[in-house]
Amino acid sequence: MPAIDVVFFDVLGTVVDWRGSITGEVANFLRRHEAHHIDAGAFADAWVGRYDAAAGAVRDDGRPYVTLDVLNRETLDVSLSEVGIAPSGLPARELDELTRAWHRLKPWPDAVAGIAALKKRFIVAPLSDGHTRMLVDMAKFAGLPWDVVLGADLFQAYKPMPQVYSSACGFLDVAPERAMLVAAHGYDLAGARACGLKTAFIQRSNASDPSKACENQSRHDWDFSADDLCDLARRL
Amino acid sequence: MPAIDVVFFDVLGTVVDWRGSITGEVANFLRRHEAHHIDAGAFADAWVGRYDAAAGAVRDDGRPYVTLDVLNRETLDVSLSEVGIAPSGLPARELDELTRAWHRLKPWPDAVAGIAALKKRFIVAPLSDGHTRMLVDMAKFAGLPWDVVLGADLFQAYKPMPQVYSSACGFLDVAPERAMLVAAHGYDLAGARACGLKTAFIQRSNASDPSKACENQSRHDWDFSADDLCDLARRL
Repeated sequence: MPAIDVVFFDVLGTVVDWRGSITGEVANFLRRHEAHHIDAGAFADAWVGRYDAAAGAVRDDGRPYVTLDVLNRETLDVSLSEVGIAPSGLPARELDELTRAWHRLKPWPDAVAGIAALKKRFIVAPLSDGHTRMLVDMAKFAGLPWDVVLGADLFQAYKPMPQVYSSACGFLDVAPERAMLVAAHGYDLAGARACGLKTAFIQRSNASDPSKACENQSRHDWDFSADDLCDLARRL
Repeated sequence: MPAIDVVFFDVLGTVVDWRGSITGEVANFLRRHEAHHIDAGAFADAWVGRYDAAAGAVRDDGRPYVTLDVLNRETLDVSLSEVGIAPSGLPARELDELTRAWHRLKPWPDAVAGIAALKKRFIVAPLSDGHTRMLVDMAKFAGLPWDVVLGADLFQAYKPMPQVYSSACGFLDVAPERAMLVAAHGYDLAGARACGLKTAFIQRSNASDPSKACENQSRHDWDFSADDLCDLARRL
């Protein structure tokens, strides 16, 4: 067993099926509004695809931190306008509710069992761009058995800003080298490594992220790599 | 069911048997150091009894926030000196380890089942003077099934400072009137009420707190009162 006390997990894409879940809720929304000409999968991809640039305004361009609820609501409006639906013509309550689809993301099939197995030996916690309430709602919806939930609102920052990884270790009173990040995204693991954390890459072949499509990911660059979270629990 | 989304719990005394747990670890410590003349229960009372004044330095006297680990280590030294044991004559490692007894407090018999029952309908979270790592260690040790753990280190403050209650509601994106504090201590419930939270008093007849001995507690002053956490789950 490696000398690790805390295992952090990227959530969006690594633990939950982000795009699949959003696509399902978008399809219901479009059906309810009789927008049958719009493809739910393409719409979800466009919406999810705007997330990185929206977080980038905080990360790189000095926008004061706002939660993913705020960013997702803004990018929903843009995505609707792009397909010819004026968001001002829809009840705000319905758009807020669709935005809360991000609080109800479904776990990958291995996620709950994998996290539960790792929880027996380590402190397990999400380390996500999601804010605390989003992550808590998602954990209750999906049955994710976290020991502790530290949302991006605690750090007022988005990954891979170094204060996310460093402050998370600080709150858990753990030296970075005794913590590990588990993620399906190389940029996130690189950010964790730069702060001294150990790294574990999870192969999510179905989880290609349109917002990070140009990223070149190799499973061999990291301290551990695994096919899924149950496989990781066996390897550690 | 009341219109509540989040139930916060005071921990020390309300969820865990603070003094009983500390007494057990103190007894082991004194035995190991052949200090048979010192009564473990009286020593634990004296140590626990210094906690309120130590937190008061942060709360009332402008001391910058430090965690309970720091305060408890300081008051351990004072308590040892008082019974004629020079802390400088003992290995620091052993004193640190005894201080970590506060991370291993045993739950009251109803605590795990009561919190689990309330978790089915509400977000459940500790709201304690303990810091995040202390509360996470305690939850793993005692099997407390929290949805989220917000330690005093997030607020850099000790109860009943209002920012504790207000910031906790902020992190969970819940209006204060849709949150409730559960506690065995009137001063804590009064602090929560002043911030707009609902209140539930738990009668812990065995949990008299030497640091709050002069407090006059009535179970009838609060929105709810119950004999224990399972009783509270039934009443809500």
